[in-house]
Amino acid sequence: MSEIKKVVLAYSGGLDTSVIVKWLQDTYQCEIVTFTADLGQGEEVEPARAKAEAMGVKEIYIEDLREEFVRDFVFPMFRANTIYEGEYLLGTSIARPLIAKRLIEIANETGADAISHGATGKGNDQVRFELGAYALKPGVKVIAPWREWDLTSRETLMAYAKERNIPIDFNKAGKKSPYSMDANLLHISYEGGVLEDTWTEHEEDMWRWSVSPENAPDVPTYLELTYERGDIVAIDGVAMSPATVLETLNKIGGANGIGRLDIVENRYVGMKSRGCYETPGGTIMMRAHRAIESITLDREVAHLKDELMPKYASLIYNGYWWSPERKMLQTMIDASQEPVNGVVRLKLYKGNVVVVGRKSDNSLFDTRISTFEDDGGAYNQKDAEGFIKLNALRMRIAANNGRELL
Amino acid sequence: MSEIKKVVLAYSGGLDTSVIVKWLQDTYQCEIVTFTADLGQGEEVEPARAKAEAMGVKEIYIEDLREEFVRDFVFPMFRANTIYEGEYLLGTSIARPLIAKRLIEIANETGADAISHGATGKGNDQVRFELGAYALKPGVKVIAPWREWDLTSRETLMAYAKERNIPIDFNKAGKKSPYSMDANLLHISYEGGVLEDTWTEHEEDMWRWSVSPENAPDVPTYLELTYERGDIVAIDGVAMSPATVLETLNKIGGANGIGRLDIVENRYVGMKSRGCYETPGGTIMMRAHRAIESITLDREVAHLKDELMPKYASLIYNGYWWSPERKMLQTMIDASQEPVNGVVRLKLYKGNVVVVGRKSDNSLFDTRISTFEDDGGAYNQKDAEGFIKLNALRMRIAANNGRELL
Amino acid sequence: MSEIKKVVLAYSGGLDTSVIVKWLQDTYQCEIVTFTADLGQGEEVEPARAKAEAMGVKEIYIEDLREEFVRDFVFPMFRANTIYEGEYLLGTSIARPLIAKRLIEIANETGADAISHGATGKGNDQVRFELGAYALKPGVKVIAPWREWDLTSRETLMAYAKERNIPIDFNKAGKKSPYSMDANLLHISYEGGVLEDTWTEHEEDMWRWSVSPENAPDVPTYLELTYERGDIVAIDGVAMSPATVLETLNKIGGANGIGRLDIVENRYVGMKSRGCYETPGGTIMMRAHRAIESITLDREVAHLKDELMPKYASLIYNGYWWSPERKMLQTMIDASQEPVNGVVRLKLYKGNVVVVGRKSDNSLFDTRISTFEDDGGAYNQKDAEGFIKLNALRMRIAANNGRELL
Amino acid sequence: MSEIKKVVLAYSGGLDTSVIVKWLQDTYQCEIVTFTADLGQGEEVEPARAKAEAMGVKEIYIEDLREEFVRDFVFPMFRANTIYEGEYLLGTSIARPLIAKRLIEIANETGADAISHGATGKGNDQVRFELGAYALKPGVKVIAPWREWDLTSRETLMAYAKERNIPIDFNKAGKKSPYSMDANLLHISYEGGVLEDTWTEHEEDMWRWSVSPENAPDVPTYLELTYERGDIVAIDGVAMSPATVLETLNKIGGANGIGRLDIVENRYVGMKSRGCYETPGGTIMMRAHRAIESITLDREVAHLKDELMPKYASLIYNGYWWSPERKMLQTMIDASQEPVNGVVRLKLYKGNVVVVGRKSDNSLFDTRISTFEDDGGAYNQKDAEGFIKLNALRMRIAANNGRELL
Repeated sequence: MSEIKKVVLAYSGGLDTSVIVKWLQDTYQCEIVTFTADLGQGEEVEPARAKAEAMGVKEIYIEDLREEFVRDFVFPMFRANTIYEGEYLLGTSIARPLIAKRLIEIANETGADAISHGATGKGNDQVRFELGAYALKPGVKVIAPWREWDLTSRETLMAYAKERNIPIDFNKAGKKSPYSMDANLLHISYEGGVLEDTWTEHEEDMWRWSVSPENAPDVPTYLELTYERGDIVAIDGVAMSPATVLETLNKIGGANGIGRLDIVENRYVGMKSRGCYETPGGTIMMRAHRAIESITLDREVAHLKDELMPKYASLIYNGYWWSPERKMLQTMIDASQEPVNGVVRLKLYKGNVVVVGRKSDNSLFDTRISTFEDDGGAYNQKDAEGFIKLNALRMRIAANNGRELL
Repeated sequence: MSEIKKVVLAYSGGLDTSVIVKWLQDTYQCEIVTFTADLGQGEEVEPARAKAEAMGVKEIYIEDLREEFVRDFVFPMFRANTIYEGEYLLGTSIARPLIAKRLIEIANETGADAISHGATGKGNDQVRFELGAYALKPGVKVIAPWREWDLTSRETLMAYAKERNIPIDFNKAGKKSPYSMDANLLHISYEGGVLEDTWTEHEEDMWRWSVSPENAPDVPTYLELTYERGDIVAIDGVAMSPATVLETLNKIGGANGIGRLDIVENRYVGMKSRGCYETPGGTIMMRAHRAIESITLDREVAHLKDELMPKYASLIYNGYWWSPERKMLQTMIDASQEPVNGVVRLKLYKGNVVVVGRKSDNSLFDTRISTFEDDGGAYNQKDAEGFIKLNALRMRIAANNGRELL
Repeated sequence: MSEIKKVVLAYSGGLDTSVIVKWLQDTYQCEIVTFTADLGQGEEVEPARAKAEAMGVKEIYIEDLREEFVRDFVFPMFRANTIYEGEYLLGTSIARPLIAKRLIEIANETGADAISHGATGKGNDQVRFELGAYALKPGVKVIAPWREWDLTSRETLMAYAKERNIPIDFNKAGKKSPYSMDANLLHISYEGGVLEDTWTEHEEDMWRWSVSPENAPDVPTYLELTYERGDIVAIDGVAMSPATVLETLNKIGGANGIGRLDIVENRYVGMKSRGCYETPGGTIMMRAHRAIESITLDREVAHLKDELMPKYASLIYNGYWWSPERKMLQTMIDASQEPVNGVVRLKLYKGNVVVVGRKSDNSLFDTRISTFEDDGGAYNQKDAEGFIKLNALRMRIAANNGRELL
Repeated sequence: MSEIKKVVLAYSGGLDTSVIVKWLQDTYQCEIVTFTADLGQGEEVEPARAKAEAMGVKEIYIEDLREEFVRDFVFPMFRANTIYEGEYLLGTSIARPLIAKRLIEIANETGADAISHGATGKGNDQVRFELGAYALKPGVKVIAPWREWDLTSRETLMAYAKERNIPIDFNKAGKKSPYSMDANLLHISYEGGVLEDTWTEHEEDMWRWSVSPENAPDVPTYLELTYERGDIVAIDGVAMSPATVLETLNKIGGANGIGRLDIVENRYVGMKSRGCYETPGGTIMMRAHRAIESITLDREVAHLKDELMPKYASLIYNGYWWSPERKMLQTMIDASQEPVNGVVRLKLYKGNVVVVGRKSDNSLFDTRISTFEDDGGAYNQKDAEGFIKLNALRMRIAANNGRELL
């Protein structure tokens, strides 16, 4: 264990990672570099500095990564209409690769030979952090305290913190939520507590980012989203940066009771777990992106994207953002977004996201052809007969052969 | 044209298909057999008898196919969580193969050598009817009047009807909806009219089956759905037949503003078209089926189903229900549903379908393992390190080789 | 029919397309532009000029497209290890999009409003020509004489040719092969004749490009192929252009009895047909490309390519080279070839292509890790336990639940 | 370690597993049950009895599993035309699940609480054994000595054997092949030695089951294989059991120089490794099965199988035979084989397997339709125009919109 000289730790400033700072110092006798990122989780990051300093940390990184997060991670993922297991918008999964990347970059800058994080040994996040780290710096050492130490309960953690004078807010820590939570600009998640019984309804006061549909306004909100190459660049005609887009949609969505989800999902490490998620902005973006694609994408391009999406979603969920196969798929997805330009009009009302209009200079919707009225010869209905006849030919031959099943 | 002796016509009793009866008699000098089915479209089918008789039709089939429709078509499709292009629940598509099957069976019973239908030459339904017919009776002749005649507008149709004394309800026909509609137990659809401009919002008074979320009750409705092998067999503990399940869910869903959809879709014949759909019961079933699968299906089985679903959906949308590849996929999908048993609890509120509980004797959700509390050794956190290390190995080797991109 | 003013015809100079020149002049009273391409079919193209002139054609295009054919069509296809239905290397399919492209470009240059070709109404080639043409020039008219005229047998064609003084070589035409053949630099194909009985063995004297394995040399030939970004750039260390690479491999492969194939394939128009193919160079390239990829590609990248290959192959077989979905897939395939550099060593012997060596600066084969000898800690065997345990977890939970089947 | 009471060991009778018997006794102080299976590896299994007895083993299982192996594992796999990474016929992979199954069944019969095997910590076989074992008996303990002990070289193993009086054939052991080999009825494999340099050619005297193409007979051998539901049931008209079919094909194939392969493959544990394989019978079966499918399977069924095959192959390669997803795929594959009946005629010559004929009562090859001669109206060439026009429609609309790329 004496090999480790310097560790970069993903440091939130909370109880768990504060204990980890001390534990790493004690256990590995090594220098600690803390890295605290603002990914839009809605808590101040600056207070982490004083806490880290108080524990003797000399190299402290505190960064606002919100724009990079949305621009280079969230938006590319939404270009693929990415949903894991039919429901989950991957809010936690998509933040991990960025943290892994910065941990490694900081390790390179500071000459650290190891990284560390506060994810447990049962979850997906350890996998996401570490696969990213290994892909970006193959020789890096990874220290995952939760897989090593014996501080396995909240009580032992608190005791350790007291014993070592770790600067935590005992008031806040004492009133801790019964849920394990994670937040960033894309979502906030809840696990544990009463959610561990799949039959028990989630509690209304668990939710933090959105009002309930019941408490949302009685009048709908209309919204226009402008797309360029598959990304939202303006809301109601006002140009915005990626992070501002998502912040704005979160606000509007949350106020209208949009984006709550309660699911049981399959973790990469092999177990099922229940999670509740609030993804107001993401829920709006998902519907809107499909709507703009519906008029601008070729049918077969759209279908190919749909067929590959579950694999792409699993790659992100499982932590393979930095893998060559994810990048390879991204190449194709990004290429498909060239014509995905235009405007989508939405109506938001008590949890509902309703698409009410979409328009684009790249629209492939051709009224002359699809209309039931006369189309002036753009489409010859007689062609349909040959189309059907040849598509049926193999089945007719089979039926003639007496084939009944396959 | 003199070859055709007897034609079985899919006959609704409305203006269009009544004109077709006459036109077939005039054009082909052949006998007509009419076939009218109750698929839950919400209109009386018996009045079709008198109309057909008035036009001299001697063989008249009027049938209630609601149970067969839901049991053998709708339910099997929902086992796959089938959605076309991310949004559409295939309400029209899934009814066509049953009609095709009955047309052919009746042709065989009555010695008819041809079938006919009222679908236009621009839509998907002609393909669905005819692919089914050819697959089931390879030598059948198909007459698609809309691809042959010159009665291309409503006015010419009406004139033809008057001239030939076709028994239509001119009152009703005069007040015709601006929309082209189709309904069955699964949904009602709207096309045409103002919908032909993708930027124009659908009109509130277009919808027929559901109240708007705005007008839905202010208190939520809770519901428990019991599943056996992937199908709903009881609602709130009351056992029901498949058709009764769907009728009940339509009623409850419609009353709660659930299941409205406004999309632009890609037709098999190559054009985009806009459709609005009301699918109250189907929308509930989709969420609930995913929920019961979420605790009963193995992860990789669920993912394999998700990866194949877009193809399966396209097969149904495009009219290949009776194809060997659809049956082959169905074999696999049905096999997967063996353990999909249990109960899902839902909350319905103003357009929202919220899953609030799911339980099953076949549940693979194992609290001992996924809990954050001590699991008594069921899961060894140290295993995660090896799991991650070996999954990262190929990427580490590549990074060691200096590989940056793929 | 009077609308057509000028037609560009894919003209081989043979009987069929010479009759088409005349038939187009007679039937459409239009000007003809002939286009004859050297794609490596092994016949002189220049004689087509005199024949066309003799029939009054004023605009005559005769072009050597061999380099473009191999560089922009054959090589990109081989980057995907493309095989249709497990066997067919798509020799005919891949030449059609280039011809379609040139037909349209020439139509644009000469102000023609239509194109024409000599493919029959039962085959795939009509589809490939016409889908390409429509994709590149949506308003073009296509004339497919074989679908229109009544010259349905060789005899009627010959009679028509005599009657109209069409300049054909009656000697050659009289001794016509019993097979329908097509050739280009990638392959020569045979259909019809005795091949129409799937149980009858192909005849030895049918083959034109290769000796039989029986007649091939008794000593093996060794060969080294150098790859850059997935394409062969040198043979035995000698740099060569794409067409020269393929010509060289055809010569060496044909001399060693390599590349014969006898299959029954599924045509896009719905029927099965038997084809025999000689693809000497292509057969060598297929094995060699997999070999160089085997050391340079990441596992998951390779597997993703393999999973998408059948779809990509069908797109080419069915004539969708110019479709957006083919281009989208190509983007991804091409991106994957960045590291596919190095040398493959082959042994050719009487029909066998044996890979005997492969090396690359981008090799991911890491002897230190895969060797059975001590690897100095590059791989920790203990990691395998955790890897297996977590991969087994979901199956263990299911077995604990008593799950036996799915 | 004292927990283990009885271990079932996959015992070959060779040096390695004999050392394991002793090592398990020493290390775990437990009873050993040996299990030795004849899977067609070509070595006597009965001698293992005396060796096990000499080491004090009281429960000894020696079984001939050849028929079960071919019937329930090899044949089902060949129904899918299964090839891993375009080349490998999975000879080793497919034997492991059967051994895992018997280990667990014997553990249940003998009341053993653990199993053990002689696979190393770097290979795929450990994964295959253990995933199978855990899937079939979730609470079983697995002991993998190669991941635990320090006998990491041949020398230390030999020393250990001498020291403990382990009954090995030192003569044989002294002259050990430089290759790591594995054999069963489907193949024999070679790894290690000079093969560890991917550029070095394999040595001719390495191969054990086949003559080289150079030394194969100068006259071809013809063969007729009869299929029922996708499996071979007779050779040259003589009905045979599955194992006899494979033994016979191995003999004929090996004598004709068929089935040698030299590849670099991607192991599941993350590294690349080079393997040489002799699979004479399997190579013949692969070509023949595709040939019988080519006339009996519907096009889309065949294509769906092709698209899913890479995934199915990876599942077997990676050790997931006993997983629900493999079984789910098998359900579909088996269903597809209903009509795969008939006879394939092959010509074998110096390494070449040439399909020269195929016939079936279930043939979908319809000469009347595919022939170039008049087909009596079975196919209307004019239908092709509509077929092409509608398939081109979406691309025409896009081109009209000025779309150039996707």
